[in-house]
Amino acid sequence: MKNAVLAAIGDELLSGARLERNANFMAGNFHAKGINVKRIEIISDEEEEIISLLSRWIGKTDVLIISGGLGPTHDDKTRYAVAKYLGCGLKPDDESYDRILARVKDDPRRYAYTESVRDPQAMIPELAETVCNPAGFALGMKFTRDGTKVIALPGVPFEYEAMIRQELPEIFTHDERRTASVIILDTPEMHIAQKIPEVINHSGLHVSILPAFPQVELIIRGEPDIVSWAEEITHSKFEGLVLPEGSKSLADAVLIEARKKDIHVACAESCTGGLVGGALTEIAGSSDVFNGSAVTYSNESKYKILGVKLDTLEKFGAVSSECACEMAEGAMKIYGADYAVSITGIAGPDGGSESKPVGTVWFGVAGVNGTHSAMKNLPGKREEVRTRAVRFALAELWKEIRR
Amino acid sequence: MKNAVLAAIGDELLSGARLERNANFMAGNFHAKGINVKRIEIISDEEEEIISLLSRWIGKTDVLIISGGLGPTHDDKTRYAVAKYLGCGLKPDDESYDRILARVKDDPRRYAYTESVRDPQAMIPELAETVCNPAGFALGMKFTRDGTKVIALPGVPFEYEAMIRQELPEIFTHDERRTASVIILDTPEMHIAQKIPEVINHSGLHVSILPAFPQVELIIRGEPDIVSWAEEITHSKFEGLVLPEGSKSLADAVLIEARKKDIHVACAESCTGGLVGGALTEIAGSSDVFNGSAVTYSNESKYKILGVKLDTLEKFGAVSSECACEMAEGAMKIYGADYAVSITGIAGPDGGSESKPVGTVWFGVAGVNGTHSAMKNLPGKREEVRTRAVRFALAELWKEIRR
Repeated sequence: MKNAVLAAIGDELLSGARLERNANFMAGNFHAKGINVKRIEIISDEEEEIISLLSRWIGKTDVLIISGGLGPTHDDKTRYAVAKYLGCGLKPDDESYDRILARVKDDPRRYAYTESVRDPQAMIPELAETVCNPAGFALGMKFTRDGTKVIALPGVPFEYEAMIRQELPEIFTHDERRTASVIILDTPEMHIAQKIPEVINHSGLHVSILPAFPQVELIIRGEPDIVSWAEEITHSKFEGLVLPEGSKSLADAVLIEARKKDIHVACAESCTGGLVGGALTEIAGSSDVFNGSAVTYSNESKYKILGVKLDTLEKFGAVSSECACEMAEGAMKIYGADYAVSITGIAGPDGGSESKPVGTVWFGVAGVNGTHSAMKNLPGKREEVRTRAVRFALAELWKEIRR
Repeated sequence: MKNAVLAAIGDELLSGARLERNANFMAGNFHAKGINVKRIEIISDEEEEIISLLSRWIGKTDVLIISGGLGPTHDDKTRYAVAKYLGCGLKPDDESYDRILARVKDDPRRYAYTESVRDPQAMIPELAETVCNPAGFALGMKFTRDGTKVIALPGVPFEYEAMIRQELPEIFTHDERRTASVIILDTPEMHIAQKIPEVINHSGLHVSILPAFPQVELIIRGEPDIVSWAEEITHSKFEGLVLPEGSKSLADAVLIEARKKDIHVACAESCTGGLVGGALTEIAGSSDVFNGSAVTYSNESKYKILGVKLDTLEKFGAVSSECACEMAEGAMKIYGADYAVSITGIAGPDGGSESKPVGTVWFGVAGVNGTHSAMKNLPGKREEVRTRAVRFALAELWKEIRR
């Protein structure tokens, strides 16, 4: 298998009601195996569109993976389109469906429901094979034509993932690395390009430069030994600003560093509303070094829970260096942590003023070396401001604990 | 303008390193205006691929919006591909670029950097026009050929959004509604289809059914009066289980209900790590009813901050009805809130046991009607378990405060 095309079916994707994620998941896994994803396409859930997708790619790619359109409702048309394309009828695969039913035999309500949608959920095109569903209730299907293996799976992400792992196990085994990610802090993307031209311009490498304030991520692809060489160069040229090898994200770097130093961390969040805690706990096993986060959205809770002085809130306001420092110190204390980071700012769209416009965010870091604060004017809308604030807070915390 | 095609350029999208979001944003806005998005395509950042994209869609859609490939680095090839397609050279648009530069005149470091990438960032194909960038440093470009308007913009989401709002202002004005979203709780998708066949099968409507435990969202599209009729029917058939009109999400429904009742809410989170707070504060103006969330990941912090009894933790464990109830009561107390919801569970992949497998999550709800708890066995991986837990917690909180 050398190349792949990924497609998703669903009007909810073309109308913006849902964000497609299966193709992204699969692209990452194909990529890690050196398989080139030629195209990702999102098409509507009309039968002709699905048939046209099959005609467009069969014979032109080694594998075509389709997600969506296999549920029990009127807008689920993949099975009919595949049958039409193959020029055959549909037949029930009762044996596979019975295995799904057996999983809910102890739940009469769910059993009755699942049985009631046997038609169409058990229906498979006569010229296709069943792909069993270990995680849900819709069967998938697969067939090979003109050198292209076509696999059609339900769109529900964890069903899609369970089924593709079962169908293409070779994609999910670990082998020699062909991709490296290097995350560099506080450096504009063009400076990075200027500082490591030998990496950027190496004919054996493909380097993507992905800025996401305050970090820039380099994705370096190529033969394993050249990738390792490029990684080494990059690490040495950006010493002190680059996350250690093996850290997949800022949150990951914080947890790894905390584990290494045997310390505990905590947060105090206002405008990020819990997203820093959310980012740290996204990583399994975070509980061994992350104690918690006090989301104190109201001034009263900053005072009552974190012990921010009323005087501070009155004199400097909640969005201030003073408040950020007291929040961080408060979080360190109440969580019994060694280090804490705080975030307090104006995410917008309202709440800004001349002196503190929307995007003004104060960060506090408290730890064994004392407490300090930093202010950033973050651009973008509410979501953007919050996302950037989360990353900046994690970067500040990481820098402090590795001092 | 009747139909549109959205494309994104970037190897980082095809390798799974980044999730594409601009097309989703634009699809939602086009859709709200009754403009049909025919296709979303993600292509690699090779010049030939970009030229092939242009050839494929020019003459076949009213508008083609392309994002990405306009930065200053080696992998930014959109401007060269557009020039090649149009059969012309590139010329600098210094006037537009100088306006961008003027924005950083007070920041010598940023000014010098921006000036140093004038070539290529100011370069525009001779047969295209400039699209100014009010939010960043790369110029966009546009041209019309064979009835297709092509607009190429940078991939950075907030630049993309600012520029497309400026180019297609008519898309972003409010007018008659053509899409309604109805969110129904605790009802399997097939039951919904069976209960409102007159809506699902109406020839003038297009209905998408999008399950996301514990809710199912119906996206209803069509002429405004038929959509309103469908909304009314759905609301009356699912009374008590349907979020009120105007609530865009469970978090939104909680805030609206809390505002209506003039009460304050708070949370206590363990396995969701702050994501419930994150969801509530995603909505601007949440501070008037949301006091905060105590993220207590360690047992010690559950005891110290929320006042969960040591006896409870020892006897029943942190993942128990008893702990969930005490967490909710503790959050209500420390935040001075009228209602609070708590979440404590095993998100996995580790930490599960025979009696409490991965996916076991306890929820507590405390309020003026006392405290109660609920347990769910949530399927999926860590991320999936956490996402479902967030939605379930918000649903429980909403149901309680509207009692």
